[in-house]
Amino acid sequence: MPLGEFALIDRFFRDCGSRRDTRVGIGDDGAVLMPPAGHELVAVVDTLVEGVHFPPQSPARSIGHRALAVNLSDIAAMGATPAWALLAITLPRVDEDWLGEFAVGFGELARAHEVQLVGGDTTSGPLTVTVQMLGVVPRGEALLRRGGQAGDLVYVTGTPGDAACGLALLQGRLRTPATARATELDTLRNRFLFPEPRLAAGVRLRGVASACIDVSDGLAGDLGKLATASGCGARVEITQLPLSESLLAVAGRAAAEHFALTGGDDYELCFTVPPALAPALGGLPCTAIGRLTTGRGVAVLRGDSVIEFSHSGFDHFAT
Amino acid sequence: MPLGEFALIDRFFRDCGSRRDTRVGIGDDGAVLMPPAGHELVAVVDTLVEGVHFPPQSPARSIGHRALAVNLSDIAAMGATPAWALLAITLPRVDEDWLGEFAVGFGELARAHEVQLVGGDTTSGPLTVTVQMLGVVPRGEALLRRGGQAGDLVYVTGTPGDAACGLALLQGRLRTPATARATELDTLRNRFLFPEPRLAAGVRLRGVASACIDVSDGLAGDLGKLATASGCGARVEITQLPLSESLLAVAGRAAAEHFALTGGDDYELCFTVPPALAPALGGLPCTAIGRLTTGRGVAVLRGDSVIEFSHSGFDHFAT
Repeated sequence: MPLGEFALIDRFFRDCGSRRDTRVGIGDDGAVLMPPAGHELVAVVDTLVEGVHFPPQSPARSIGHRALAVNLSDIAAMGATPAWALLAITLPRVDEDWLGEFAVGFGELARAHEVQLVGGDTTSGPLTVTVQMLGVVPRGEALLRRGGQAGDLVYVTGTPGDAACGLALLQGRLRTPATARATELDTLRNRFLFPEPRLAAGVRLRGVASACIDVSDGLAGDLGKLATASGCGARVEITQLPLSESLLAVAGRAAAEHFALTGGDDYELCFTVPPALAPALGGLPCTAIGRLTTGRGVAVLRGDSVIEFSHSGFDHFAT
Repeated sequence: MPLGEFALIDRFFRDCGSRRDTRVGIGDDGAVLMPPAGHELVAVVDTLVEGVHFPPQSPARSIGHRALAVNLSDIAAMGATPAWALLAITLPRVDEDWLGEFAVGFGELARAHEVQLVGGDTTSGPLTVTVQMLGVVPRGEALLRRGGQAGDLVYVTGTPGDAACGLALLQGRLRTPATARATELDTLRNRFLFPEPRLAAGVRLRGVASACIDVSDGLAGDLGKLATASGCGARVEITQLPLSESLLAVAGRAAAEHFALTGGDDYELCFTVPPALAPALGGLPCTAIGRLTTGRGVAVLRGDSVIEFSHSGFDHFAT
């Protein structure tokens, strides 16, 4: 490597993001952080591997954005506020243009959510990006996967499925109808390339949601994890899924439902709320899609008919 | 992957390490941690890549040990006490025997230092292990690289150079003399495969050391970073280097000095102490090897002669 680790971090990442309550940031053996009194810490980690989590030759700016976004989404799902990030990046070679674009994507999202990059490690090898993030949450108020009860309403934020459709477009796996407009295609691609984690929603859900998870592996499968952690089953009404107009226009209804139920990478939140607390959701961009049940597993219904059922995920779900 | 992420983490890593003040560990979107009052957090991250940081086909138990040890060493260098770890592991394929051995190496060292593994991410790709660790230190007492002053004594713990020699042995890069004993060779190899981070020393040095760094990239180069951060130069007396008997027996004095000054992977601590505080080091396994100076750069002396000098590291140091 022509640039040593220290020079690399210093040049591209020293002022990446916001300032927080930090005694020592980048440049020592470790960062020294001052967590606020009365709060607990939330710690998350996610790795993106080229060719697995994003297509080869993805824009560096998107990779920087997504590496942070996947972790911000976990922080959001816990109802926490993000604070500090550590970045471990493995690169096949030092490409300064690439690193500059990566830092732009990472830095823009970090500043938008007041995250400070306080440490990192750069190594040589196949392109892999791991971000660890620390957030803070008032003591005892973190949203967990467990805590849902039978009868609780199941919600999802935003319009799931868009990102999975966008990835299919980027990979040339989807035949697009002649009627699809360029703006619709761009919208879907950008939902994959530049997802917006739901941090404001996570904070709003403290004291309201009985359980919460972020949708990273697909809505049906992630709801199944929430239900299992809560000792419940779940029921989803497929006609209630909030499908975006872009998704319907580009994919058609059947494929749109498939993307919404099984597609990962949306980074929306799926959460449960006791019916009595549902009015507290006013103004939050979310949709009720079903209920927790006394059973086990996730049942997907169309009207009165169960059209799919699984105890353990929906990797091969077909609508 | 035949095993999903959840099953993988659950099976191999759920009870890996010790219990700490943790509200939620593995199994949710994030871990919820309760930092002790009156303390600051120390956050570090390090990545090991196969073929870069350890030879291909290294024992899985050693990789698990070292992935934790490199981070524990950074925690030690900050004078902190380790508490929680997050593990992001990228694997070419799921090999249960390999994972079991990895978890043994990771878990043994974690328990020895009362570290709890509270989260992780498993991904598919070239073998890469990233550990993020959080430690705690009484407010304002973290040891930093800056803070050293001209005239302060320079110390190193243990016997640097052993690990670099051990790596050279593992890679078949070193011709061993016929007089070398099997126990000596094993000692050196194990210093690379299973380094012991200096956590007790780091805690002892609070309020005593003016600056501290861990020796991961080589003693002379890391001392240079400490000196630069402190606005000083440094002088090392090569005859004062604490060379182990095993290292001298296997490598001979000239190569031993070279390994000690430039070899990485020792995970000893290099630190500075004002002369008046030197008596406070009683009982600590460390050796005075030089002083900080009013100049810049690191000078290596043999008697009255400067035999090497560098402003920016000793990657190509030759004794």
